[in-house]
Amino acid sequence: MTTISLTTDFGLQDWYVGTMKGVIQRIAPGATVIDISHGVRQGDIRQGAFMISQALPWFPSDAVHVGVVDPGVGSSRRAVVIETDGPVLVGPDNGLFTQALRTLTVRGVWSIANIDWISPEVSSTFHGRDIFAPAAARIAGGAHPSEAGPELTGLQSLELPEPERHGKAVLARVLHVDHFGNLITSMETRLFPAESLSDLAPELPWGTGMRPEYAGIKSCYHDIPDGQFGLIAGSTGYWELAMNCCPLAGFCHQAPDQPLPFRP
Amino acid sequence: MTTISLTTDFGLQDWYVGTMKGVIQRIAPGATVIDISHGVRQGDIRQGAFMISQALPWFPSDAVHVGVVDPGVGSSRRAVVIETDGPVLVGPDNGLFTQALRTLTVRGVWSIANIDWISPEVSSTFHGRDIFAPAAARIAGGAHPSEAGPELTGLQSLELPEPERHGKAVLARVLHVDHFGNLITSMETRLFPAESLSDLAPELPWGTGMRPEYAGIKSCYHDIPDGQFGLIAGSTGYWELAMNCCPLAGFCHQAPDQPLPFRP
Amino acid sequence: MTTISLTTDFGLQDWYVGTMKGVIQRIAPGATVIDISHGVRQGDIRQGAFMISQALPWFPSDAVHVGVVDPGVGSSRRAVVIETDGPVLVGPDNGLFTQALRTLTVRGVWSIANIDWISPEVSSTFHGRDIFAPAAARIAGGAHPSEAGPELTGLQSLELPEPERHGKAVLARVLHVDHFGNLITSMETRLFPAESLSDLAPELPWGTGMRPEYAGIKSCYHDIPDGQFGLIAGSTGYWELAMNCCPLAGFCHQAPDQPLPFRP
Repeated sequence: MTTISLTTDFGLQDWYVGTMKGVIQRIAPGATVIDISHGVRQGDIRQGAFMISQALPWFPSDAVHVGVVDPGVGSSRRAVVIETDGPVLVGPDNGLFTQALRTLTVRGVWSIANIDWISPEVSSTFHGRDIFAPAAARIAGGAHPSEAGPELTGLQSLELPEPERHGKAVLARVLHVDHFGNLITSMETRLFPAESLSDLAPELPWGTGMRPEYAGIKSCYHDIPDGQFGLIAGSTGYWELAMNCCPLAGFCHQAPDQPLPFRP
Repeated sequence: MTTISLTTDFGLQDWYVGTMKGVIQRIAPGATVIDISHGVRQGDIRQGAFMISQALPWFPSDAVHVGVVDPGVGSSRRAVVIETDGPVLVGPDNGLFTQALRTLTVRGVWSIANIDWISPEVSSTFHGRDIFAPAAARIAGGAHPSEAGPELTGLQSLELPEPERHGKAVLARVLHVDHFGNLITSMETRLFPAESLSDLAPELPWGTGMRPEYAGIKSCYHDIPDGQFGLIAGSTGYWELAMNCCPLAGFCHQAPDQPLPFRP
Repeated sequence: MTTISLTTDFGLQDWYVGTMKGVIQRIAPGATVIDISHGVRQGDIRQGAFMISQALPWFPSDAVHVGVVDPGVGSSRRAVVIETDGPVLVGPDNGLFTQALRTLTVRGVWSIANIDWISPEVSSTFHGRDIFAPAAARIAGGAHPSEAGPELTGLQSLELPEPERHGKAVLARVLHVDHFGNLITSMETRLFPAESLSDLAPELPWGTGMRPEYAGIKSCYHDIPDGQFGLIAGSTGYWELAMNCCPLAGFCHQAPDQPLPFRP
């Protein structure tokens, strides 16, 4: 009963995700397939990497996680299987597993080259269907990652800027804007205790409309006064800026990866 | 092979729903998880309650239904398990199960407090992951709802205005605007037979563009003349206003919970 | 462990798809249900037919495929089960399986009329829940398609115009605009070898903004120069027009089924 997760930028409008699941079902009919997200912005490897890293710790530790945010599909970028002390990761070698790998130990990396593992005719545009889904299904069915192909070294990884302290100020970034319009910052709650942020206020690039007032650190959404926004210790392990029942992102031009200064 | 359903306002863009499924898979690997909807409007308990009540009768009677439309997450609102003569319901105590409970008999209500049932570190923003998903998985795995924590009384419930008759007129509401732009009214077909509505016409808040003509009661979408709209006995058990292959909601400013008068 | 796939125009906002899955779970609890897409445009049978035909070959050959793009629901159009030499197809008789059936041999077609196979009260608006899901679940549970009801002949099918050659020019169509803004053309790569297209350029109905330059035939998205668009042998078996990491569809008014000329 192995679990396979899928994270892609394919969206749910087309048949792409369903086709990957059909392929998995043919090869590993007992597997449970769970969607993490197919809403990664087109080609945004950094956003995909964040999403995968957020979901992974909550899955069975022997799961197989497939990530396909792959602007280099069909080019010379490598297709890899990564064995760790926990889950197995399957996807393009483009940094998509950077954050997930921070809390895992890599045991081996293999290129996916075994012709029994991939589609007889590999397209140049849909390796999710032709390479990654069948490889994940093989592993879910009991094959060892080393059967995928030749062993590799030197995984690609993303550079992820850490928040910088300038005197009392902190220069953070927005990691993610979620469905609720909350801005997830790059400040980890374990590295930035509440005391270190209580005298600071964020500088947001407001739009021309209403400009909500900053209410400071609050313990839950419900405690943020109506029409204001607060800083919350999010479920992600990072501080997030949020309004109560209203999307903060709708009031400002804040986008992922943009600088987000907190100043006295 | 217990079934767990999920209804939330989380959307499908983020990793939130997938993470709940990962948690369930760890605790109850044999469970079948089915999404009812993750498209409830942000914090709209009433819409979530309607969606849950519409889907529930079609599920296995021993299913566990998780609802997370929870603007009070992290505040003092209670997290509950509700045992009924049919399914078990899991979610915040904010009225989200009001309509579903109308056709069920409650056998007991328990607070979710057992530390073995919840995440070791409960966040203040994502009880779907930290409390509701693991509690549902415990129940799907065979635990009795009473093991969740102390028994409770006095469930919250929503006030849901019934249609009012004023002489021959009926003052109804829009319960839901669906993907097809159909307006589902608050008039149940069993309480409002076709004869009682055949001499009435709805008053819609039209926009500035085309104003479709009312074709009266029709037996199916196909029978509504092109460019007109009709009243149909919907699959929901309520009368709905619809056009044939064209979203009626696009022509008017009708929103859920707005008054919808039918007059002679 | 039979697989049931679902393709509809229901969207994922409402409870419609989840309810179909609840019905299936009650009747065939061991079945694996996979969504192909619920993003077919409202009532667009042709788009649904294309999506189904794209996904089908990748599923287990004994799967049951349910398609519900059904503007005629509740009218006299027939509800059918189609047995083939591969999968079983379940849906309205409106041409939705036209393209999928091109590579299958039909063994028999039956009307869904058996009252044990359908909901006790069949609505006139939601046969996905009341007829198609329960029929598919019966078949997944081992029933033979012929138990559905009387045998039928004369399936409806769509007329799908083939690309026309006019001298050296080819008059194709857009079959589909996908999530990435790629335009999938009606030219099959096996019928139109690269040589036959290398001296031609597509005429797109550009908008008023930037007009990307045509880069000719490229082997993958990555090889298309930034700001240009290319012609790629797509994973669909058809040629597609695409930009690299940027939605081509955003620059032109090209819509499905529109003519797409390629001229010298």
